[in-house]
Amino acid sequence: MQTPKKIAVVGAGLVGSLLAIYLKRAGHIVHVFDRSPDIRNVQFSGRSINLVMSQRGWKALERLNLQQEIQKIGIPVDKRAIHIANEALNYQFYGKEGEAIYSLSRGVLNRKMIDLAEAEGVEFKFEQKIWDVSLDSATLHQGETERGEWFDLDYDIVFGADGAFSRVRHRMQRQSMFNYSQDFLKIGYKELHIPANEDGSHKLDKNSLHIWPRGEFMLMALANLDGSFTCTLFMPHEGENSFEEIQNVSDLNTFFDKHFPDTKAIMPKLEEDFFKNPTSYLVTMKCFPWTYKDKVALIGDACHAIVPFYGHGMNAGFEDITILVEMIEKYGDDWETIFESYQNSRKPNADAIAELSYRNFMEMSSKTADMKFHLQKKIEKWFSEKHPDKWVPLYRRVTFTHQPYAEALAEGDKQNAIMQEILAIDNIEEIWETEPIEHRILELLK
Amino acid sequence: MQTPKKIAVVGAGLVGSLLAIYLKRAGHIVHVFDRSPDIRNVQFSGRSINLVMSQRGWKALERLNLQQEIQKIGIPVDKRAIHIANEALNYQFYGKEGEAIYSLSRGVLNRKMIDLAEAEGVEFKFEQKIWDVSLDSATLHQGETERGEWFDLDYDIVFGADGAFSRVRHRMQRQSMFNYSQDFLKIGYKELHIPANEDGSHKLDKNSLHIWPRGEFMLMALANLDGSFTCTLFMPHEGENSFEEIQNVSDLNTFFDKHFPDTKAIMPKLEEDFFKNPTSYLVTMKCFPWTYKDKVALIGDACHAIVPFYGHGMNAGFEDITILVEMIEKYGDDWETIFESYQNSRKPNADAIAELSYRNFMEMSSKTADMKFHLQKKIEKWFSEKHPDKWVPLYRRVTFTHQPYAEALAEGDKQNAIMQEILAIDNIEEIWETEPIEHRILELLK
Repeated sequence: MQTPKKIAVVGAGLVGSLLAIYLKRAGHIVHVFDRSPDIRNVQFSGRSINLVMSQRGWKALERLNLQQEIQKIGIPVDKRAIHIANEALNYQFYGKEGEAIYSLSRGVLNRKMIDLAEAEGVEFKFEQKIWDVSLDSATLHQGETERGEWFDLDYDIVFGADGAFSRVRHRMQRQSMFNYSQDFLKIGYKELHIPANEDGSHKLDKNSLHIWPRGEFMLMALANLDGSFTCTLFMPHEGENSFEEIQNVSDLNTFFDKHFPDTKAIMPKLEEDFFKNPTSYLVTMKCFPWTYKDKVALIGDACHAIVPFYGHGMNAGFEDITILVEMIEKYGDDWETIFESYQNSRKPNADAIAELSYRNFMEMSSKTADMKFHLQKKIEKWFSEKHPDKWVPLYRRVTFTHQPYAEALAEGDKQNAIMQEILAIDNIEEIWETEPIEHRILELLK
Repeated sequence: MQTPKKIAVVGAGLVGSLLAIYLKRAGHIVHVFDRSPDIRNVQFSGRSINLVMSQRGWKALERLNLQQEIQKIGIPVDKRAIHIANEALNYQFYGKEGEAIYSLSRGVLNRKMIDLAEAEGVEFKFEQKIWDVSLDSATLHQGETERGEWFDLDYDIVFGADGAFSRVRHRMQRQSMFNYSQDFLKIGYKELHIPANEDGSHKLDKNSLHIWPRGEFMLMALANLDGSFTCTLFMPHEGENSFEEIQNVSDLNTFFDKHFPDTKAIMPKLEEDFFKNPTSYLVTMKCFPWTYKDKVALIGDACHAIVPFYGHGMNAGFEDITILVEMIEKYGDDWETIFESYQNSRKPNADAIAELSYRNFMEMSSKTADMKFHLQKKIEKWFSEKHPDKWVPLYRRVTFTHQPYAEALAEGDKQNAIMQEILAIDNIEEIWETEPIEHRILELLK
């Protein structure tokens, strides 16, 4: 058991709330600050992408016995459903039978997490803007405006769980030897909506992640509990087929008629949603170090913001917590060693999931519509069922196991090189399910 | 001629001062702000590395007819002098006969540039801290402290020439779609000193850049006009042979006795300098965009801070000015197009000199002591004298020509690949100066 400390968590998002529960159960006094109003009393933002919880996320909840509470508000998704014009729906299963990720509305999940944390005795302080932090003393500087009067709030330890644009990190960034990068994608996104049928049922298969892949852009849909789908249109900010090109209702209808004609009937409020909801940006943010002595630590998006194409932003953040808690169990009251080991363990894995996420846009938007890629997936599945000890496909390892992301990425690159050799074999479309191919893969694996 | 504008330049360093002269001569009202006291009235910092002016720097001065003024305060340096224990000095010439870079004390040069700018009618405002800038209105926010009272200063155009930790960039960084990275080297540096002889002469050859290459660390010396040398010790912050290891006078003497025994006699104030002067950090900073509409532009280190191993920080900054002025001549009063063309032209070249500078630490600290590398240099020189149209060595292209950095880097990589093939030839040490080798290189160049 640790000596009780007074701990501030900046940011009442998913990672901040879950971390707060862990810290509270460990006997600490825990205050969570957020600059926004209590999400339980306000409408959601209109700029969110549905979350998918996978194994790494569940693990962090399981240790607290909270997984069942959360499963209740999620919908299992075991496959991609690929919508290509004039073709039958194509399904690509994510893992083995029974393996599924869970679609969760960000707002619904966040409300639930805050309820759970409050029930544990965590104290939430909403609409309290933290502008700065004194690292050496773990003092928060809170005030109405950045240039106005500030109040000092003293803590023993401060966690920055305040997202990609973290103010806590902002202070750390001004130190020497702080490495930092932010890279914006040329692709942005917009939240759209497919409402429920009148009887409350879903208009599409709710157990699929629906993708309309169109090369440089794509539409995606994930089910909500209330029968609706949260859709996300990913598209370049500028240039051909871009947000910039769609200036009015007529542009919008022309664009959807051309590229997504089958969605018009199920998106009755498309026009309203498109022009009401903001176009959001996608950024990859990396930094190091993540911690300052035994006083301050960054966690989640605050130290490794990634693009959403692998569905791992929250899962990676929750895994941060798992690793942090392991270090707490190992090092007790030695917070400096806890923080040091936590950041050294997580940094290479955070970099790896950033890379995997970045690459996955191409997989989702282009490759899912590509026959060679379908064949690759089929061969991998076939071989992996024959030799489950020798071949676990990359997506499965990232999503349904706890293999460190960095290892998963390295193995995935090796597997892909093997698959490229196999796909280059003459007539592979006809002969992939044969013994010679099986032997060739086994040989290449040596 | 442009319509006169009221222009603020933030930063009275080398780039800020030179830019101010150009803008003043073009008919604008020019105010230069600096947070520090007037460098003409204070002691230098004890944290500077001597500058080397090369062709790109001279070009920017030549257009203003200032090159002779500056040459007077510099010392030509036409070669490296390599100090290896128990070996005779080894000289590596930089270019062709008569080609030299100029060693300049940063402080002396900066004072001179401010004098020159003031003589043109540029107004300098020292000890005025600019904390923020409103991009849309080109308004500077100036005040004594970051959290205290601020005063607004309105301009038509603002240039951020305020260095690697630019406040102007800091504001731009908070925009969406602003890409940014800062990467600190594990290597830091410390300024040291070799005083003049009693008769005012130099203790070492003043026309050489002296290097004591030791693999992971190195000592360097560049001459000053007063007979002294400014020395720089580059070394890791932590680990073996690091600044961290040298905690007291005894550590220092042990270290210098072991690694730089020949310097002890010529550095009588080593102990004082070492513990008085700070250990400084080395950072590579990249960002984009560099400009905001027709209002704000970054220039020099503020948009591309590089490590000092190619001696091109100032030269790259001065070349920014050359390109900016070309765009001004081309686009007249259309400042938005001027800024857009300037940043698009410079960005790939800034990235290239960042890469070249980063690589050059290994060249200076390790390769200069390596026989294979000496041989490579000799072969390149020999071939390049035979075929001056076919082979200009990378260092010469970067230092003595105006070839865009990005092109120089790409060509240098090709040349290096050729040289690696040549060096792998059996017995190359004996046969490099022969016709078959000449023909082989010509073949590889095709």
